[in-house]
Amino acid sequence: MKFGGTSVADLDRIRFVAERVATEISKGYDAIVVVSAMAGKTNELIASVTGSSTFYDAREYDAVVSSGENVTAGLLALALQELDIPARSWQGWQVPIRCSSAHAAARIESISTVNINLKFAEGMKAAVVAGFQGISAEGRITTLGRGGSDTTAVALAAAFQAEQCHIYTDVDGVYTADPRICSKAQRLDRISYEEMLELASLGAKVLQTRSIELAMRNHVTLRVLSSFESVSDASGTLVCDEEKDMESKVVAGVAHSRDEAKLTLISVADRPGIAATIFGALGEAGVNVDMIVQNISEEGRTDMTFSCPTDQVFFAQRALECIKQDGILNYSELVADTDVAKVSAVGIGMRSHTGVAARMFKVLSEEGINIKVITTSEIKISVLIERKYMELAVQSLHDAFHLENVGASAVEMDTGLC
Amino acid sequence: MKFGGTSVADLDRIRFVAERVATEISKGYDAIVVVSAMAGKTNELIASVTGSSTFYDAREYDAVVSSGENVTAGLLALALQELDIPARSWQGWQVPIRCSSAHAAARIESISTVNINLKFAEGMKAAVVAGFQGISAEGRITTLGRGGSDTTAVALAAAFQAEQCHIYTDVDGVYTADPRICSKAQRLDRISYEEMLELASLGAKVLQTRSIELAMRNHVTLRVLSSFESVSDASGTLVCDEEKDMESKVVAGVAHSRDEAKLTLISVADRPGIAATIFGALGEAGVNVDMIVQNISEEGRTDMTFSCPTDQVFFAQRALECIKQDGILNYSELVADTDVAKVSAVGIGMRSHTGVAARMFKVLSEEGINIKVITTSEIKISVLIERKYMELAVQSLHDAFHLENVGASAVEMDTGLC
Repeated sequence: MKFGGTSVADLDRIRFVAERVATEISKGYDAIVVVSAMAGKTNELIASVTGSSTFYDAREYDAVVSSGENVTAGLLALALQELDIPARSWQGWQVPIRCSSAHAAARIESISTVNINLKFAEGMKAAVVAGFQGISAEGRITTLGRGGSDTTAVALAAAFQAEQCHIYTDVDGVYTADPRICSKAQRLDRISYEEMLELASLGAKVLQTRSIELAMRNHVTLRVLSSFESVSDASGTLVCDEEKDMESKVVAGVAHSRDEAKLTLISVADRPGIAATIFGALGEAGVNVDMIVQNISEEGRTDMTFSCPTDQVFFAQRALECIKQDGILNYSELVADTDVAKVSAVGIGMRSHTGVAARMFKVLSEEGINIKVITTSEIKISVLIERKYMELAVQSLHDAFHLENVGASAVEMDTGLC
Repeated sequence: MKFGGTSVADLDRIRFVAERVATEISKGYDAIVVVSAMAGKTNELIASVTGSSTFYDAREYDAVVSSGENVTAGLLALALQELDIPARSWQGWQVPIRCSSAHAAARIESISTVNINLKFAEGMKAAVVAGFQGISAEGRITTLGRGGSDTTAVALAAAFQAEQCHIYTDVDGVYTADPRICSKAQRLDRISYEEMLELASLGAKVLQTRSIELAMRNHVTLRVLSSFESVSDASGTLVCDEEKDMESKVVAGVAHSRDEAKLTLISVADRPGIAATIFGALGEAGVNVDMIVQNISEEGRTDMTFSCPTDQVFFAQRALECIKQDGILNYSELVADTDVAKVSAVGIGMRSHTGVAARMFKVLSEEGINIKVITTSEIKISVLIERKYMELAVQSLHDAFHLENVGASAVEMDTGLC
């Protein structure tokens, strides 16, 4: 069971979480509970680090920032003890959760089950583990990067061969679209790892991308639930291996991402190796390039368009101007359009159904929405559009793919094997 | 070097501390720096623990409360790095500082110097150690109790055979009396461990009692300094082994403690074992009995008077009523006087000088101050008086023992060996 920052925001919320854990334990389970820092605490700690040092030592960042989860773990253990549940807290180094030395962005390398299993054998019913952290081979504290507690939870579920991994959050599951934008959005009862992965990378913030990859690789059955609802209502969304009947839904959901920017290099020399030069420089500058489009070449010159998160535009501009000044790249102009958004349709049914892209483009065109860039994968189609049309695009696509019925049909399917 | 909570209260103060450490390192020293939690943080964490659980698990208390020091240690390491000092933070378990399993009141059992010395050999100049914490044989985090960072600092100084142990605090040294009460109070340039120990147990809050004992046992030369003054002014007070010339000062200082209470058991059966019964019960109830006086017995019955901290009066009353109801102890009445204070004169010169007690009682009597209880040790005399006379008593005794000259004469003596 994993509880995020808003689920453990104060002592009352922590008590509520303890009751939730107690309910699971009353069913005969032993529980491993992963907790984030209380909402706001991590940001507060990060502010103290960035206030201390401009170019900070990531090892000290980790030592400071990890303390938020340690506090929550101790407090939840105490709240569980108040309910007569034998519980104790575990910091990353106590488990231990061994990580790479890539501080502030560490990867979990291995988890020892010995210490926790020993305590389960001695009667402990709940192991409350501080999320988001581990220990490096050098004995330093490492953190997994923002949202890393999801990854901690999935990795523990895999290591302990847990029956299920419940991710409690401030929404009650995965939706066909963001309900704040699309009032007809339906909660999905089930979704495949692949679809969830696409949705997460496309802007759905319900689960961290890495945690989904890890769950997929280890066949950890995830359930996304609300920690704010009472226990009886909570079925949430199951994230699991794909099943036959899932393919009947061509599109599982519509995702959107507001913070996109489109950059175009005008009149670049169209010769082999030029793309490698451009995107090599952007990669070194830490720019996450998403979509790439190269226009038809005229007289040996071409326009190169790509998208990246809005807050990386400055770094992209600086990197490209730099290689222009060094004479490595020649272009006439760099045009940045920060007024765009990305809208995507995702569904494993696309593999076997044709015409999804055509239907999507037709719907957008009927609404008068101009498509600036298109990218596709086996199970998703993404378009970059003017930001002011984002909500309209999400709503229209939701309607066009009849996603308002997905929830209902999925409920009927819930007697299946998944 | 040890810096308390007010010395590291915010990022500006931490930067100031970093400069202080850098100055010492510029003299050619390697530094071990012990830090407390930022002022107020420990109380905040304790409140979250007591808010979670009425009878809390001290192991979880320690896991939560220790996080405050971890944050400061990381932030100070970062501030030192900003000054180009190779520094890193060390949590108790990373040193490791091995402690007993008496959670929330652990004792340091051993300190390994291997890990830190290895890093010093690799070029680290400052090891920033989280104070107040360690690790138990079971691998759980332990804390040393309030003020434990002083003890961490002295224990590290002993383990690493440090040349000196500097305790930076919000006062600039040890005074002949509390300057807030006695305007003539002088800073002492030197004081013996024994005197410091008495002053600390008698209410002077500048150093934790256990840290002084530990320093005395290991001959760690302590210097109490202000972390708020600029470096050049800071000589502070040296706490060291006693020297010949120290005895010329009969009284080194006057201490006071406001939060005292006097309890009297009226008409107790005066028979062997009755004191053991009374103080056994009080000890079990966690009452720190300080002074004890038994009045002259009349007709086989006696009055027993003792003092304890004001906030323990309730527990003392309950314990004594309990053994009365059980028929173990018989007394007619229990009278509690919470309106008293303790004033003490301390000095190793008392060993060789007589008449100190007589002079003290004469001074108080001349001021019309009635003495309620007296206790003495080889180097101190304490009296319990009405609280309203506390300031007057401190000032009168300070005058009577000419303590306004102590600072000046001590300055002259500062060319000595100590």
